[in-house]
Amino acid sequence: MDRSPGRHFLQIPGPTNTPLQILAAIAKPTIGHRSAEFASLGLDVLKRIRSVFKTENPVVIFPTSGTGAWEAALVNTLSPGDRVLMFETGWFSTLWSNMAKALGLQAEIIPGDWRSGVKAEEIEARLRADVAHTYKAVAAALEAHPKARAVYVQASETSTCVLHPVPAIAEITRARDVLLVVDGITAVGALDLPMDRLGIDALITGSQKGLMLPPGLAFIALSARAWAAVQRATLPRFYFDLARERKGVAERSTAWTPAISLIQGLRVALAMMRSEGLPNVYARHDRLARATRAGAAAIGLQLLAPDAPSPAGTAVCLPGGVDGSGMFRYLRDRMRVTFAGGQDQLKGKIIRVAHLGYVGSFDIVTGLAALELALRHFGAPVELGRGVGAAEAILAEGLPPR
Amino acid sequence: MDRSPGRHFLQIPGPTNTPLQILAAIAKPTIGHRSAEFASLGLDVLKRIRSVFKTENPVVIFPTSGTGAWEAALVNTLSPGDRVLMFETGWFSTLWSNMAKALGLQAEIIPGDWRSGVKAEEIEARLRADVAHTYKAVAAALEAHPKARAVYVQASETSTCVLHPVPAIAEITRARDVLLVVDGITAVGALDLPMDRLGIDALITGSQKGLMLPPGLAFIALSARAWAAVQRATLPRFYFDLARERKGVAERSTAWTPAISLIQGLRVALAMMRSEGLPNVYARHDRLARATRAGAAAIGLQLLAPDAPSPAGTAVCLPGGVDGSGMFRYLRDRMRVTFAGGQDQLKGKIIRVAHLGYVGSFDIVTGLAALELALRHFGAPVELGRGVGAAEAILAEGLPPR
Repeated sequence: MDRSPGRHFLQIPGPTNTPLQILAAIAKPTIGHRSAEFASLGLDVLKRIRSVFKTENPVVIFPTSGTGAWEAALVNTLSPGDRVLMFETGWFSTLWSNMAKALGLQAEIIPGDWRSGVKAEEIEARLRADVAHTYKAVAAALEAHPKARAVYVQASETSTCVLHPVPAIAEITRARDVLLVVDGITAVGALDLPMDRLGIDALITGSQKGLMLPPGLAFIALSARAWAAVQRATLPRFYFDLARERKGVAERSTAWTPAISLIQGLRVALAMMRSEGLPNVYARHDRLARATRAGAAAIGLQLLAPDAPSPAGTAVCLPGGVDGSGMFRYLRDRMRVTFAGGQDQLKGKIIRVAHLGYVGSFDIVTGLAALELALRHFGAPVELGRGVGAAEAILAEGLPPR
Repeated sequence: MDRSPGRHFLQIPGPTNTPLQILAAIAKPTIGHRSAEFASLGLDVLKRIRSVFKTENPVVIFPTSGTGAWEAALVNTLSPGDRVLMFETGWFSTLWSNMAKALGLQAEIIPGDWRSGVKAEEIEARLRADVAHTYKAVAAALEAHPKARAVYVQASETSTCVLHPVPAIAEITRARDVLLVVDGITAVGALDLPMDRLGIDALITGSQKGLMLPPGLAFIALSARAWAAVQRATLPRFYFDLARERKGVAERSTAWTPAISLIQGLRVALAMMRSEGLPNVYARHDRLARATRAGAAAIGLQLLAPDAPSPAGTAVCLPGGVDGSGMFRYLRDRMRVTFAGGQDQLKGKIIRVAHLGYVGSFDIVTGLAALELALRHFGAPVELGRGVGAAEAILAEGLPPR
């Protein structure tokens, strides 16, 4: 692949494209992690990352994948046998519930259909607005499981591109003695999740998503009441011990050796987000997502989750009669456009077009044009340019004034 | 620091210097972690890293610091309440014993003096050769703690630059139903630790040491009997679940998102080690270590651990009357040569000169010359050039033929 001409388009929901200026910072010579230079770099990024999480509380950075931050959220706030409430919204929510069980928690899973928050039959009447629907479902689930100590939810479920109404869920949990842990892995940097204002108790993300870095860092911030829970929590922990890391940072250091090169890149990533302005970053993600959905609809593709679409990615259902796996490989290996496929029960059934991180209007144009061309090549009746045109009508909103 | 002229010399036992060709590979654009391109890269480095570990068993790579691989070794092979035998050889062995306790194990700590394997009074008569001495101590400790399920030892204790005689310890453990877990964090790549031949049950290292990469990756390999222990071990685990990761690799994937950019660098690091030849890599470390010790002796500095010196670094005791902390800062901030200081009980008392990873003869010359100059500047009677000359006599062994 390295030798083929032209750029390879990576349009998966992480790792996302890393801009050249971040790659250059990552390639700077290594510095000592106990040096004043690193302390100054580390404290700078720890201060600035708070503005992305929108919290006054400390954000902790671990050298780990996002899964590690999930483990940190569990082992630092809970004790063996504690009940946690989770919602089956796709592959990742299923994975996290397996983790909770493996670590000695009682996970109550509210089953779902991988297209929305909960199964329709679980609630009396499906309300029109998805927000109210999930709101009701969470409240009902908490009534049914009064001993739940925490609610775990994916803000944007990466495997299905389903968006959860975190503000509505937070309204329920912050009125009760229940922690709300939010997986913001494909949400932080893509949509506004003001942690402190909403009352989110733990917010998690990874480096290779909205933050535009390669994978290798995970981030977690806790609310004041979550930090109080840390004092009581007795699940065994050491590597992911948040109190130890927080103490280290208070002493201008880190508990374990940090992934220095990625932190060098993080400083540049945060400067880029600051320069664009967070409201503009969110507006861009929203615009690219709407353009992608409009384009897919114009091509004649069905959305997997039309009622709860994520600004990080769009999952489209493959039309019947098209060899999905073959088309996916053709796009990737011959057209050099990599989308994400479906996971687990959705394997071979969907294509996920990501618009997360360092993505602009012409990436959406490219992605939709590639989809049009590949679909027609695989026998689907597609009017070339129709999807792109529909997207362009929305992308035009982002044009600078003349 | 960025704007001062000349290179900053980083001579600490990790992170070590990363060569430019590795930095360039790390800065390559990110690729998808579920792509064929990454699968091919991942399988290639997983195959080649075995030759560094000298094992036929799989080596598992985690996106984590070395501490995470230690946690992996514990949670995958042991069950709550299991007894493990550890030796207090410095700051890191103390840290690992705290980890073992935090995770629910019973850690039996054989106290030590931070200069050798065990306290002199612990054994009948201190034998002349350090190997026989530690051998006896381990055998005696196992007699005293017959229920021990595992022995944990630092091959090279980073905080004191003490080398443990792993081959002799392995001789004891492989004859018994006791696992030998070796922290090779500053040993792998610096000295020959042929895992399979010695019968080491778990060998661990980190990326930022002998492998010359920035921090962010940790490596662990298990013996066949350690993999059998994984089946029986019941400590809770999820992120660090080795069986899950091994299954992932068998399916040409990874359980969690890997630190792709560091793995791109790892391929180059392994190619560089292959090109130099592992026997030459080990001989270089040995030669640089001997040159450093000879230089320090010629300067008149005492070694912290003369009987068990590590090829990864040399700890020298600061002469009385010299302001150690001031000299350390002067070296780092004014002379741009960063050594490591002492940790915990050795703070302000020693300087550790590392010769690990991407280090050549002239780095040793620079380090010793900097020490000579700084010592004289801080009032110690030093004949300039004497230490360097003594080192050069040994470094000459590595000169290519005319």
